[in-house]
Amino acid sequence: MTNTTPSGQQHADTLIHARWIIPVDGSRTILEDHSLAITDGKITALLPTADAKAHWSADIIQNLAEHTLIPGFINTHGHAAMSLFRGLSDDLPVIEWLNNHIWPAEGQFVNEDFVHDGTRLAMAEMIRGGTTTFSDNYFFPEAAGHAALEGGMRCQLVFPVLDFPTGWAKDAANYISKGLDTIDLFRNQDSILVGFGPHAPYSVSDAPLKEIITLSEQLDVNVQMHIHESAQEIKESIEKTGMRPLRRLAELGFLSPRLQCTHMTQLNEAEIQLIAQNGCSVIHCPESNLKLASGFSPVARLQQAGVNVAIGTDGCASNNDLDMLGETRTASLIAKAVGQDATALSAWGALEAATINGARAMGIDTQTGSLEIGKQADIAAIAMNELENLPVYNPVSQLIYTASRNQFTHVWVNGKALMEDRHLTTLDEAWLKQRANYWQKRISASRQG
Amino acid sequence: MTNTTPSGQQHADTLIHARWIIPVDGSRTILEDHSLAITDGKITALLPTADAKAHWSADIIQNLAEHTLIPGFINTHGHAAMSLFRGLSDDLPVIEWLNNHIWPAEGQFVNEDFVHDGTRLAMAEMIRGGTTTFSDNYFFPEAAGHAALEGGMRCQLVFPVLDFPTGWAKDAANYISKGLDTIDLFRNQDSILVGFGPHAPYSVSDAPLKEIITLSEQLDVNVQMHIHESAQEIKESIEKTGMRPLRRLAELGFLSPRLQCTHMTQLNEAEIQLIAQNGCSVIHCPESNLKLASGFSPVARLQQAGVNVAIGTDGCASNNDLDMLGETRTASLIAKAVGQDATALSAWGALEAATINGARAMGIDTQTGSLEIGKQADIAAIAMNELENLPVYNPVSQLIYTASRNQFTHVWVNGKALMEDRHLTTLDEAWLKQRANYWQKRISASRQG
Repeated sequence: MTNTTPSGQQHADTLIHARWIIPVDGSRTILEDHSLAITDGKITALLPTADAKAHWSADIIQNLAEHTLIPGFINTHGHAAMSLFRGLSDDLPVIEWLNNHIWPAEGQFVNEDFVHDGTRLAMAEMIRGGTTTFSDNYFFPEAAGHAALEGGMRCQLVFPVLDFPTGWAKDAANYISKGLDTIDLFRNQDSILVGFGPHAPYSVSDAPLKEIITLSEQLDVNVQMHIHESAQEIKESIEKTGMRPLRRLAELGFLSPRLQCTHMTQLNEAEIQLIAQNGCSVIHCPESNLKLASGFSPVARLQQAGVNVAIGTDGCASNNDLDMLGETRTASLIAKAVGQDATALSAWGALEAATINGARAMGIDTQTGSLEIGKQADIAAIAMNELENLPVYNPVSQLIYTASRNQFTHVWVNGKALMEDRHLTTLDEAWLKQRANYWQKRISASRQG
Repeated sequence: MTNTTPSGQQHADTLIHARWIIPVDGSRTILEDHSLAITDGKITALLPTADAKAHWSADIIQNLAEHTLIPGFINTHGHAAMSLFRGLSDDLPVIEWLNNHIWPAEGQFVNEDFVHDGTRLAMAEMIRGGTTTFSDNYFFPEAAGHAALEGGMRCQLVFPVLDFPTGWAKDAANYISKGLDTIDLFRNQDSILVGFGPHAPYSVSDAPLKEIITLSEQLDVNVQMHIHESAQEIKESIEKTGMRPLRRLAELGFLSPRLQCTHMTQLNEAEIQLIAQNGCSVIHCPESNLKLASGFSPVARLQQAGVNVAIGTDGCASNNDLDMLGETRTASLIAKAVGQDATALSAWGALEAATINGARAMGIDTQTGSLEIGKQADIAAIAMNELENLPVYNPVSQLIYTASRNQFTHVWVNGKALMEDRHLTTLDEAWLKQRANYWQKRISASRQG
């Protein structure tokens, strides 16, 4: 709510004067020398800085004369706590990596403490890189949700569902039951969405998938699943069921606008149409797909078919960072070579994928994903005056193709500053470094033993 | 030369105590808590820090307790002065990008002043990103060479040869004649190599190519050429000559160990064998190949065939940065997906490609490219204690897959510090920013006019 005083002056909680504002509102407009006003956590005005300085007052004024304001990134797929496994094992065949490294480490170490520490470490990295919303698919989702509340980030928790036991649950029914408790736990938290995260077609059988369809409709919550990540997955599905995984999911009635299909590196033209017709979103995780040699998602073809494509970093075990700016650049670069078209996923298109498209995938695009009046103030400010960014012919191009994540200086979620001049306000960096070292020592010792 | 005093103490010009040293000496060893001694521009010792502290003195001592020392990156292909065209035009079809944007801008603006300023801007970016040697292929190479001498970087200048006129020369004979003058000009500069940079098979006819073969052998200098960059190039060559470009070059006798083949995205198995048999190096520029939708170089297959593969950023007009760390990460990630093998171009292999392999391509691997006693002290130090790097299970993995170029703190070439605690010692950042803004205004104004 904007307050107008009797003198005609207007007042905001926070007023940010910026060199450039990129609203990502669909118009592909860049506002130069503009200001953004925040009151009660919402964006209340976007106006020329000259007007703002003449007619507005605020409790907090930020002068960001060399900066660009963008909607905070939406990291639409990840496993936050796996930040503690960052670089634990690399450059291995995928089966060996999973069977001999990641799954044993998860079995031995993943508990509430691990998720508590690892999610906070991940959030610190994400906030420092301009991310305001993240999706998390991991065990002990209630611990991740509490971390998100403490850290102040907007969050979608998609709790795992698997046929087999892990440290968190013992069978599909048990995962679903614990997940429903998580939905209840965060029901009154506006900044936390909870939905279903059935792992993958090959690890969840038909009965729980049918139950997830029914429950997700009844509760009106999202579903996110790793689908068509690798050629191996397709081959095994055909051997086992006679069908490619997407066909099986379609026959079960699993495809809907609430479904976020993650990875999707193996797609034929009919499958692209199927995804488009059912209004599913695709969550593109290019660096994970490259690093695990999974393949290339046909992003340009998906977009041409009308599919909403968002971006995710995936977890740190397979990336090895949560750098949404770097991920978005990679998405743009690789879309061109894969599509054999240098105009594919332009700087503008990539920025939209990393912001508003993520909000659309989660169904929260009326609240966040762009800088528009009435939306929540989820904002990232990036300094664009490094030598590496000059000359600036086009601020969007310089953002996507030349800037680095360390140039983000300020981040706000719901109008609250989570980072100010590179200082985190909700998370303790020194404590996080201690915890990272603690887990490194424990995990390394066990692997040498 | 190491000086041993009567007391048994030893003395160095500079002594660097580091948390980790990655020598890239072929052994794939990481030295922890080690020190490196420099005297007369050369590396004179690598020893445990405890021993160094007990037995060594130095004029300059650097304590880099959270840092990794690596051989400085070797950026084996680029067009440095094009940094002034960074982001001038993006996301366009390649033909439109070249014909309507890059070539007209070059025709209008490229002169000695432009190369003077643009090369210095590029060097500042490269030094800040841990690069110590760069190859430059651009007009007015004498201006670039003077810039390299002033900036203190090691440099390979490969002067352009083209059939058609530009602002620098009017025909192939004129390019070659001016280039021979450049070779003479820098003959006595140990840190500058000058060689031939015939542009591409489609832009240089047989007669000058034959002359380049003869002259490069007589003068014992390198040759670098854009080869098989795009499918279009292959198609046009077949239409015009009945041969793929590499076949034509082979028949001319152009393939030799002194040839650095840049790009090479279009290769069949016979061509890979041909390259290997002739001892040519391949200069891989993955981000340029992606951004221009040129294709994917088969790096894993080239390496399996025994080809030396080095890394280049290409110029800022098609990248849009000179970030060798980012380029090397991209090279590693994309090699895995292209090779359908998650073990392809590992973190170690990528680091080697970005350092010693570049030195090998240029024939200077006895002088630089690794941290070994007797080599020139071309070194980059990177702080590895950011949240984004933790936990550190493996310093090489964390360097390639998690670190950002802004974490480089110190860079030495020939033992001389070009950057200390992020401060450039040979180049003036404020002046460079002014010049970048000057060119931005001039070039923008002309495009709007």
